Amino acid sequence: MNYEVRMKRLKEMMSQRRIDAVILGPTSNMFYLTGFREEQMERPLLLVVGEEDFVLAPKIYEEQLSTVGLEIRSYRDGEDPYSLMRLKKGSSIAIDDQLWSLFLVEILNRFLPSNISPASVIMKELREVKDEEEIRALRSGLSIAEKSFLEFTDKVKEGENECRLARELEWLFIENGAEGTSFSPILTSGPNTSMPHLRCTSRKVKRGDVIIADFGIKFKGYSTDTTRVLTLGPPSEDVKRIWSIVVEAIAEAESSTLGSTGKDIDWRARKVISSKGFGENFIHRTGHGIGIDVHEDPYIAPDNLVEVKRGSTFTIEPGIYLPGKFGIRVEEMAVMRDKVEILTQLSREIFTV
Amino acid sequence: MNYEVRMKRLKEMMSQRRIDAVILGPTSNMFYLTGFREEQMERPLLLVVGEEDFVLAPKIYEEQLSTVGLEIRSYRDGEDPYSLMRLKKGSSIAIDDQLWSLFLVEILNRFLPSNISPASVIMKELREVKDEEEIRALRSGLSIAEKSFLEFTDKVKEGENECRLARELEWLFIENGAEGTSFSPILTSGPNTSMPHLRCTSRKVKRGDVIIADFGIKFKGYSTDTTRVLTLGPPSEDVKRIWSIVVEAIAEAESSTLGSTGKDIDWRARKVISSKGFGENFIHRTGHGIGIDVHEDPYIAPDNLVEVKRGSTFTIEPGIYLPGKFGIRVEEMAVMRDKVEILTQLSREIFTV
Repeated sequence: MNYEVRMKRLKEMMSQRRIDAVILGPTSNMFYLTGFREEQMERPLLLVVGEEDFVLAPKIYEEQLSTVGLEIRSYRDGEDPYSLMRLKKGSSIAIDDQLWSLFLVEILNRFLPSNISPASVIMKELREVKDEEEIRALRSGLSIAEKSFLEFTDKVKEGENECRLARELEWLFIENGAEGTSFSPILTSGPNTSMPHLRCTSRKVKRGDVIIADFGIKFKGYSTDTTRVLTLGPPSEDVKRIWSIVVEAIAEAESSTLGSTGKDIDWRARKVISSKGFGENFIHRTGHGIGIDVHEDPYIAPDNLVEVKRGSTFTIEPGIYLPGKFGIRVEEMAVMRDKVEILTQLSREIFTV
Repeated sequence: MNYEVRMKRLKEMMSQRRIDAVILGPTSNMFYLTGFREEQMERPLLLVVGEEDFVLAPKIYEEQLSTVGLEIRSYRDGEDPYSLMRLKKGSSIAIDDQLWSLFLVEILNRFLPSNISPASVIMKELREVKDEEEIRALRSGLSIAEKSFLEFTDKVKEGENECRLARELEWLFIENGAEGTSFSPILTSGPNTSMPHLRCTSRKVKRGDVIIADFGIKFKGYSTDTTRVLTLGPPSEDVKRIWSIVVEAIAEAESSTLGSTGKDIDWRARKVISSKGFGENFIHRTGHGIGIDVHEDPYIAPDNLVEVKRGSTFTIEPGIYLPGKFGIRVEEMAVMRDKVEILTQLSREIFTV
């Protein structure tokens, strides 16, 4: 598809209709104009076309977006994304129909304060603390996901391509009783593992590869989220060392007690990784709340200064990414009681196949 | 889950925080508060909590929503949904974070006109006319979907439940090379078929049932959409009669030529069904554009007074719904050339299994 022609036609139409800026999310529109495909998530990922053209994106997408041929303005978790965009007061703006309202409300209130707020101001408080029925749904979902993953490890063979393996895993979920996936599984191998949000490619897995499987299912409407590391053949010393730092970071976050904020738990994991010299390679937050949505409050992130409440469920998923080499991430689901209680039952080991 | 308690807590929080209205889409929030689950589409489907509580919904959801226990304000395609809601000027509003911006922009501009427009004002014109590369992607996708459907007809057996059959169909898509589904398949049986947007239930299919399969896949990022009727055992005379009206409506719409508007094509199908006395039972528009998104411009609907352009791709999917008895819908994909050219290759027959 000829993306340059499409972008040129868009600009002509903008000038004809006196539209100053078009702001698009990672929807069919962004795919149409750039070929880049991603699901919408709570972090702004925007294509802005106007006086300046750029993609505003979380740092975790930087490597993936490098082929798009547009300026990338990236931010880390905890940084303010909207400070990277400018809109003149009174600009005429066209907003992607399918862009989540959250982002429009944020943009709106910066440039034209309104009485509109994202419903999360209320809904997050309502939904953050789970009752036992909800926690049971999450546990049941996890057991389906884990059974499926264990069966999946038998299917990983040299020469299979990543996307085919991802589809295999999805099928096992359904076979085992899942209602569906909570997101398209991430199944990457070799150097692709350094891109934390790449889904899968046609790359064939080969002996010596690290494989990252990040997967979740829906059960009774509730979402799970788990990440495990596999290797095809025994893991290298390098891989073992990075993995051991990551699981140490999990253990440290796991030792948090009631009263900790999202920032506190994030910091416990982060300080382990930083102390080993990989702080710059841990390019995302430590985790996110999980319930009906796969990403919801409370965020386990440097900018969450609020206490994680008793009964909140969330992930702990530190990672270390070495571009051009490999990435390692391990992800657990947990609930806050007097202290953090892990819900995931699967071993944290490297699964050697 | 106790939805009444959840709604009561929401209202308490709204009054504490002086929020006049909460407007939610068919997202995790609506599921949390009502148990109702649906994917977001281009027609507003909103839960409004405030001075009055109600669900604003397309008429096609009326039967499904009847269990929710809230006032339903429904509208037909072509009617103005927003006239069914009232918001006082200066109200403090909380908007579902994940609600598509399109709906927020529409609500906003009614109550506080702004310089913000939905990007579809431009993007639809850009994307509406497909080039041959795009039409090839749609044709390739259709052939995967059709091969899968034909294989699927062998799997439909008495005693299988609807959702299990839906998952079976999804698996065949993946096996045959689809990137995924373009929407969760609709697989309903018996009296469930009178609800055009019900996905599937645990109802077991039995001899004599009508089964509706409405399914689509993603291929090279492009979406397909097809509906076929099956019966378990020979179809009844009633079913055959209704089916023959529906396929006659398709043939009539198919005879439209370049220069027709969305309304013209819709009218050709609609007048066939009305002339047989079932006008009130054809509760939706005749079709929708299809491309990267499964629903996009041009809409084949009574309120689309714009000419359908050469190269536009869209569905033709008339249906007749007899609540408590059964519903029949057959859906084709088409492209506008000098006249309508059907892209779907599958026979329109009733598939008797």
